[in-house]
Amino acid sequence: VDGERKGEFELIARIAERLRAGSEKDDRVALGIGDDAAVTVPEGASVLSVDAVVDGVHFRRETAPLRSVGWKALAATLSDLAAMGASARHALVVLGVPPDLDLDGCLELYDGLAAAASETGTTLLGGDVTRAPALFVTVTAFGELASPGDAVRRGGARAGDVLAVTGELGGAAAGLLLLERPDAGGSLASETAGALRERHLEPHPRLEAGKALARAGATAMIDLSDGLGADCVHLAAASGVRAEIDLGRVPVQDGVSDLASIAGLDVLDLVAGGGEDYELLAALPAERVDEAGPAVGRSGAALTVIGELSAGEGVELRDATGGLRQVAGFDHLASGPGSAGSARSE
Amino acid sequence: VDGERKGEFELIARIAERLRAGSEKDDRVALGIGDDAAVTVPEGASVLSVDAVVDGVHFRRETAPLRSVGWKALAATLSDLAAMGASARHALVVLGVPPDLDLDGCLELYDGLAAAASETGTTLLGGDVTRAPALFVTVTAFGELASPGDAVRRGGARAGDVLAVTGELGGAAAGLLLLERPDAGGSLASETAGALRERHLEPHPRLEAGKALARAGATAMIDLSDGLGADCVHLAAASGVRAEIDLGRVPVQDGVSDLASIAGLDVLDLVAGGGEDYELLAALPAERVDEAGPAVGRSGAALTVIGELSAGEGVELRDATGGLRQVAGFDHLASGPGSAGSARSE
Repeated sequence: VDGERKGEFELIARIAERLRAGSEKDDRVALGIGDDAAVTVPEGASVLSVDAVVDGVHFRRETAPLRSVGWKALAATLSDLAAMGASARHALVVLGVPPDLDLDGCLELYDGLAAAASETGTTLLGGDVTRAPALFVTVTAFGELASPGDAVRRGGARAGDVLAVTGELGGAAAGLLLLERPDAGGSLASETAGALRERHLEPHPRLEAGKALARAGATAMIDLSDGLGADCVHLAAASGVRAEIDLGRVPVQDGVSDLASIAGLDVLDLVAGGGEDYELLAALPAERVDEAGPAVGRSGAALTVIGELSAGEGVELRDATGGLRQVAGFDHLASGPGSAGSARSE
Repeated sequence: VDGERKGEFELIARIAERLRAGSEKDDRVALGIGDDAAVTVPEGASVLSVDAVVDGVHFRRETAPLRSVGWKALAATLSDLAAMGASARHALVVLGVPPDLDLDGCLELYDGLAAAASETGTTLLGGDVTRAPALFVTVTAFGELASPGDAVRRGGARAGDVLAVTGELGGAAAGLLLLERPDAGGSLASETAGALRERHLEPHPRLEAGKALARAGATAMIDLSDGLGADCVHLAAASGVRAEIDLGRVPVQDGVSDLASIAGLDVLDLVAGGGEDYELLAALPAERVDEAGPAVGRSGAALTVIGELSAGEGVELRDATGGLRQVAGFDHLASGPGSAGSARSE
């Protein structure tokens, strides 16, 4: 116990050391790590989101490096801010540490959190460290909007709007497949396979694209955490409209189709059924697409129109031949490790 | 799995139903449960804190009713806001649900959260629900100060200040003893024993007392989560002063001394060593005590001077005979269920 205790205090001290510099550089942080609570100076409206990842539910330590567990925990939470069109500001982290995770392992996880924070301009304010039977991480993210009315909600889409998606899909599901079944890649080039695994392990929340879409008049937005089909169901239901998606138009990450062929899978299951690509699905008036495309492009992602909204309800996915694919609601509890085993309630 | 899944969706729906009314009544909430993130309209400075409780570390389901697990998770986090002199505003909750916790159990836990939220004027904004191997709850609390400079930190105390404590101590440790060893109470009156158990299970964060102390010029403040001795060590170290506490002056909750006698324990171990009373320990200039006392009194708690600060370092606890008791830092990792098995890093 003595050694364990020393380790716990050393962990807190080492985390505090790393976080202090970040807080001191951030003039919105009046008080960072080291007191009963942190104090910040918000502007405009605050955008608040929390996400949890648990070993054996959202990832497996056997296949997910600890650095990626930290990175992804923050990235997934920030992706919710991106879907509101908000800027990321601060985050608080709870780390549940199981008996077999040592100091170096905890710091490796924190390095991933810190790297994702640095990439996104997010200041880590501290949090809580506790013993736990299994590794878990919860991240609370604090974002900002100039005014509360600027929030792009799920429910603002209108019949006649088009549906557009940022970036390319299917990579995270393909990467998970390669992590869980390393032999599934067969003849896939190792660089391609590496990029797919990285897509699963260290996703990039589309914060700049989200802001660009908000400015370009997006009427509704959601981040693709559960998968294109399931998340489109959420958006369509919240907006009270019917969605039709032409899967033939959905941009697919390099290597996903090859992997599907090699592994004997339907590529559309990876593209529309797999979650965690953390791209944005947005509804916007057709006449704003010409403005939105280049604006999103400047953030480093393509914007692709993949469908449209009409009066009615439900979601229709059509493949390249025009054939219909039914979409069931995403199965939160039956989902295995690596897919989103949680149900968001913000 | 199907039934499980239905349960998860029903849980989210039932929680959303309960939380929606609260969000709609709160004009600081622009967007409550049901979207990618919540949107609030902050004023002044934001005060942010997060706390986690884990089954087998901070409580045991065998002895802690689920309602109290929810109540205490929120109360403990709000206690950190109280220690800054802040008002409570909003909270986000992550619930980690083990396989053997059913829908009714989750709702019982949420009832406790909702009751503590209602008592403290806190609006629950939603959060995240996930499967987990063991029950855990993390609460992120959002508080408010008129300006960042109003925060009462741990490190502002000065030599010459007096140390004062709100309310009465020892009740939570005594209550835990009664929960873990029901026979330990012996001839203790059942009402007294019930009050001690309740003190452990459903603590009341001293939000109004914290604000009153801040207005009355408190120079440093900390909430008593780890225990009087350990938390005084934190305050003295952060302030760079030496603390002397006269344990004979510390108000002790009714029944604690009797229980200690019956159980063959030193009452001072319960009063100064036991944690989770969630009272406030404050440093303030001696000349402000006459103002602070009645102000705290109006919040429903007594304020009692129990010691003083001088130049130097360390903490001295003296018992009623003037004898010295050494205080070691609180042992975070050796601590058993019911005491604070986590290390805060805000």
